[in-house]
Amino acid sequence: MRILVVNVNTTRSMTDSIAASARAAAAPGTEIVGITPPFGAESVEGNLESYLAAVAVQEAVRTYEGEYDAVVQAGYGEHGREGLQELTTCPVVDITEAAASTAMYLGHRYSVVTTLDRAVPLIEDRLLLAGLSARCASVRASGLSVLELEQDERRAVEAIAAEAERAVVEDRAEVVILGCGGMAGLADEVRARAGVPVVDGVAAAVTVAESLVRLGLTTSKVRTYAPPRPKRVVHPVAPGQPGR
Amino acid sequence: MRILVVNVNTTRSMTDSIAASARAAAAPGTEIVGITPPFGAESVEGNLESYLAAVAVQEAVRTYEGEYDAVVQAGYGEHGREGLQELTTCPVVDITEAAASTAMYLGHRYSVVTTLDRAVPLIEDRLLLAGLSARCASVRASGLSVLELEQDERRAVEAIAAEAERAVVEDRAEVVILGCGGMAGLADEVRARAGVPVVDGVAAAVTVAESLVRLGLTTSKVRTYAPPRPKRVVHPVAPGQPGR
Amino acid sequence: MRILVVNVNTTRSMTDSIAASARAAAAPGTEIVGITPPFGAESVEGNLESYLAAVAVQEAVRTYEGEYDAVVQAGYGEHGREGLQELTTCPVVDITEAAASTAMYLGHRYSVVTTLDRAVPLIEDRLLLAGLSARCASVRASGLSVLELEQDERRAVEAIAAEAERAVVEDRAEVVILGCGGMAGLADEVRARAGVPVVDGVAAAVTVAESLVRLGLTTSKVRTYAPPRPKRVVHPVAPGQPGR
Amino acid sequence: MRILVVNVNTTRSMTDSIAASARAAAAPGTEIVGITPPFGAESVEGNLESYLAAVAVQEAVRTYEGEYDAVVQAGYGEHGREGLQELTTCPVVDITEAAASTAMYLGHRYSVVTTLDRAVPLIEDRLLLAGLSARCASVRASGLSVLELEQDERRAVEAIAAEAERAVVEDRAEVVILGCGGMAGLADEVRARAGVPVVDGVAAAVTVAESLVRLGLTTSKVRTYAPPRPKRVVHPVAPGQPGR
Amino acid sequence: MRILVVNVNTTRSMTDSIAASARAAAAPGTEIVGITPPFGAESVEGNLESYLAAVAVQEAVRTYEGEYDAVVQAGYGEHGREGLQELTTCPVVDITEAAASTAMYLGHRYSVVTTLDRAVPLIEDRLLLAGLSARCASVRASGLSVLELEQDERRAVEAIAAEAERAVVEDRAEVVILGCGGMAGLADEVRARAGVPVVDGVAAAVTVAESLVRLGLTTSKVRTYAPPRPKRVVHPVAPGQPGR
Amino acid sequence: MRILVVNVNTTRSMTDSIAASARAAAAPGTEIVGITPPFGAESVEGNLESYLAAVAVQEAVRTYEGEYDAVVQAGYGEHGREGLQELTTCPVVDITEAAASTAMYLGHRYSVVTTLDRAVPLIEDRLLLAGLSARCASVRASGLSVLELEQDERRAVEAIAAEAERAVVEDRAEVVILGCGGMAGLADEVRARAGVPVVDGVAAAVTVAESLVRLGLTTSKVRTYAPPRPKRVVHPVAPGQPGR
Repeated sequence: MRILVVNVNTTRSMTDSIAASARAAAAPGTEIVGITPPFGAESVEGNLESYLAAVAVQEAVRTYEGEYDAVVQAGYGEHGREGLQELTTCPVVDITEAAASTAMYLGHRYSVVTTLDRAVPLIEDRLLLAGLSARCASVRASGLSVLELEQDERRAVEAIAAEAERAVVEDRAEVVILGCGGMAGLADEVRARAGVPVVDGVAAAVTVAESLVRLGLTTSKVRTYAPPRPKRVVHPVAPGQPGR
Repeated sequence: MRILVVNVNTTRSMTDSIAASARAAAAPGTEIVGITPPFGAESVEGNLESYLAAVAVQEAVRTYEGEYDAVVQAGYGEHGREGLQELTTCPVVDITEAAASTAMYLGHRYSVVTTLDRAVPLIEDRLLLAGLSARCASVRASGLSVLELEQDERRAVEAIAAEAERAVVEDRAEVVILGCGGMAGLADEVRARAGVPVVDGVAAAVTVAESLVRLGLTTSKVRTYAPPRPKRVVHPVAPGQPGR
Repeated sequence: MRILVVNVNTTRSMTDSIAASARAAAAPGTEIVGITPPFGAESVEGNLESYLAAVAVQEAVRTYEGEYDAVVQAGYGEHGREGLQELTTCPVVDITEAAASTAMYLGHRYSVVTTLDRAVPLIEDRLLLAGLSARCASVRASGLSVLELEQDERRAVEAIAAEAERAVVEDRAEVVILGCGGMAGLADEVRARAGVPVVDGVAAAVTVAESLVRLGLTTSKVRTYAPPRPKRVVHPVAPGQPGR
Repeated sequence: MRILVVNVNTTRSMTDSIAASARAAAAPGTEIVGITPPFGAESVEGNLESYLAAVAVQEAVRTYEGEYDAVVQAGYGEHGREGLQELTTCPVVDITEAAASTAMYLGHRYSVVTTLDRAVPLIEDRLLLAGLSARCASVRASGLSVLELEQDERRAVEAIAAEAERAVVEDRAEVVILGCGGMAGLADEVRARAGVPVVDGVAAAVTVAESLVRLGLTTSKVRTYAPPRPKRVVHPVAPGQPGR
Repeated sequence: MRILVVNVNTTRSMTDSIAASARAAAAPGTEIVGITPPFGAESVEGNLESYLAAVAVQEAVRTYEGEYDAVVQAGYGEHGREGLQELTTCPVVDITEAAASTAMYLGHRYSVVTTLDRAVPLIEDRLLLAGLSARCASVRASGLSVLELEQDERRAVEAIAAEAERAVVEDRAEVVILGCGGMAGLADEVRARAGVPVVDGVAAAVTVAESLVRLGLTTSKVRTYAPPRPKRVVHPVAPGQPGR
Repeated sequence: MRILVVNVNTTRSMTDSIAASARAAAAPGTEIVGITPPFGAESVEGNLESYLAAVAVQEAVRTYEGEYDAVVQAGYGEHGREGLQELTTCPVVDITEAAASTAMYLGHRYSVVTTLDRAVPLIEDRLLLAGLSARCASVRASGLSVLELEQDERRAVEAIAAEAERAVVEDRAEVVILGCGGMAGLADEVRARAGVPVVDGVAAAVTVAESLVRLGLTTSKVRTYAPPRPKRVVHPVAPGQPGR
């Protein structure tokens, strides 16, 4: 089985580390293909960049030339999953949603610890839309940007674990979700500090995608995610890229 | 005062008719500038096209070279308003939300009558996110596509009025919203048939934008809609268009 | 266009200052008529007084002898708007609702800063009923009564700005609403202190009323706000006033 | 123990029949005092009349000269209970709320069958405000006005029972509430027809009031229902009545 | 009238004190029968024990050999009420629900103060299921176990009153519920400290049960609480007890 | 990895067919152990039987003598999952919840088709408690009992497919869940008829359990699902079984 794991930003090193997380969670026999979108921002931290990412991910999947069995969208709290579901009948799994539904099996309420304060409302909105917010205790910001997370792992663990502990004590969370693709490697330390299970969205999403494929389940095409109707569409391109 | 009214599809004749509706609703002294996005679909009827529209509208506003006081996003149920709010401090008004909050002044519950069945969940999701769904009685589809609406006005009125009447009787709506930019001209006939006030989103949005400008109110920059952080971003372009 | 702006308490100086706020927000050509109800309390701070105000405002509008195009009910969090909607086909705009729906265009969540602690539940209830509470971050009390607000503007600004700042930091509000008709003049100072847009309900309501009139929209008469059925009604009067 | 049972309309024969229902439900030793408000409508069927009733009931209780242990407000879906709670420390029980909380002990979901279509949103709103709507399956209108109910009992039973049956089958109600003070005598017949328990609000409210008194429970005065603050208030009077 | 008041744990002294509370609240002529279940835990503090209690209470009621008019399930936040409702047509009243619906008559919002932190989610879930959580300000833990409550009344009052005061000030509760069967005797002291009405679930439930019986209301048998269908069932027994 | 799949009724042939479904969905290397509870009903169709099942399943797992990595509770809409989570640190997966969270990846809204009308509220309540009801379009009854399903497969397919089609057309479901352990073999036919993905809870739950085990995730022990506190507990037994 081949799963496309699509990063939402244009930083190839992050695609690589996301793909590595995905491979670590995948079952034997699952091939993970990491994909970097053709345009967009080097890190996604807001609505403008997130909408850009949604379309860049769409373009990356639309123009991918091989076969695949499922798609994982690997940006926490980002727009776009619904568009991919129209593009393909394969299962499409967003890491925000996979993390939340996984966490809900493990405790009464979960919290998300993410990067910057400005990302919090985006994540809250995605959980609300996905129908997964009823058991969400809180979404908390560590105050670190996506790129800072990458640069100073020690500081990242400190900041994230501190918020995770607050989530458990003050917000009554019983499970913590790492709310950024770049946090994957920190799960063990945060778990040790906060004393609750810690869910990484990329790992969770890979197992969900594998399960859906194994069960032969595909995206419903009856209404919301029906294929686009035939019509004239001008697709955007990355500058410098020849127009298609 | 100058208001940019941005169509979400690439059909210039629809931009023109939307701008005409906007002008009909505008106060004396308000200049309406109709804008057609640089890429995207000729009509937007689904998530894939709607995400594309979000970014195309963003690009259109980002690269607009004049001054403006407010932006109206003129696609019913579409993605993207949040991104525009990061781009500018001017008020940004989505016609879906303007129609809903206007309707709520006029009756206890409102219904939306839109185009195709597949658009219904998109509209429901936008209203949910906007926090305007508590008084929504239903979103109903007329079964006509955006382009069919344009072509056969008689049939359009019949289909829309029939759903409006069902909304009033079966769903207990007291106000009806025309849930498509292309329906603007039909308000009077639908009102006559359904016996309730009929709200057109473009007209409503223009008056909201004017009011916000007049009151000196601008988008809050404190968190969700703060300007994008400085970083490397590759912007998409329309093919054939020289890269920027 | 003539808009009746009806105070909810019997203090004429407050009617005057509300009418002045309304005039400052009104478009050229809009005539604002300030009205003081014929009975009730000198300030409205609780349910008992608020119900009394509802009926006093009804009586004031019912017995108003001129023509008018819209009614603004200028008490924050008060009962009564639904009754006025039965009385007239003109648009009726409550300042609580106008402030909330205006604030929702400007930020992800809004907070209200009002007078006394006891007013908080009334305001929460009105927002819930109006279907505008989903994006309400909090309703906070400054601890000052309506009349104290009038008497010591410096202290009022301090108390309100302090709560506005807490709303932004602790409750994650991105917009603040001044939750009392008597706070209108303080918007600029509170905005400067809290760093977010500040909405005054009277100003917001006037622009909403003007917009509804301009769009030719009237209250739906199909069910909830149908005119009262013909029947024997004994109207109350102010003591000393000759019975009608 | 003495319970004031206050009608919301000015029709004395309805006060009498409500008081008779109350007496039938009361425990030995409970004295029921039926009260007719000093002004208002002969039947309450809409917001305007309901607000009028709220104040008329307030005035009736405020000026009642005897002692009492509890107040029952005997209008279904009407405004005003919160005001009475400020006026007295005695328990105040609204029949809408007593009926709903009683019904919730008897089945998974309940429906209300009321008079005219226009009363439905008022009742829905009162249940929402009271926090009792989560288990409400529907509010249905029989199509009969309050006075028609009085005049033709056979037709009333038919109309109400038909809606009760629909509520059970279509809306999945398991209990039916008679949503009008004037329906009290019809409970047995409706129960026989619909095959589910039928709750009459007046009877339910009397037992709730008795229980609260017996348990020594009084209205909380800590915030929402604190006594009105001392201030100048002009109370309305019925015309012809000497001013106080 | 005879009411079975069924303890949820196997500690007979707690059954006795619960029955004493019930008798103190009962009307003259009501006979209270305290019942201890045949198996289960000596105190119920978690889901495992609560499910065990649900079945033990079922078995106790199923095999009770006398007549009875109503059943009160006297464990706060426990499972099982729905099962009892299938077993009998008599009213079944859970003390969690009786306390909440009683509290809602007395103030705008209520809080529950219970024993251990781990009981909080169980209580929240029961209130959610019962449709009584909309006006719940908080559920707070005193940190004392059920048996500690019994042993040191002074410490219990301190701990409970401290949480009750926090509920009033921080969570804006206006009424406090004692969230444990064993707390009944502490109501007066907690009320004095917190300054708000304090509701004891056992007392409230007894008056509700009496009222339902007096009004001739029985559990709806139309769907959810229909009697079990005839089938082979192996009932569990307490070890040592001869199999039936 | 070994997964205990615990039936909720005492019919061994149903345990066998559930275990067969589980094995068909399991990955290579997963051992499925089917377990029949020691007491309870031959089919579970109501709250009384469901509570009994909860405890019987608890007893079965508590006294299971081998090792295991996860538990699947294989009864649709039944009580008890929370109790099992206290008993073990292994993941515990309820098929109701696994089906719902799986369905939410495949379409905008899902419906459940179950057996008897009386099961509908139980399922609705479990979904509400699990925080998975926001995207539930409806729970529909086929009208067949659990045992009828077993006996006449043709009739079962007809009845279930008819409800599935109604769910898609009338309730706007885009995915259908088979809401009974005994329906597993019918998925292909129902999918063909209804034209949407069909999710079987047992298969879904097995893949969820495998994923949680593979990711090293265990139940949070921090609050709700902490192990039972040490205390005297009398466990029930099946009659004839020697007391422990």
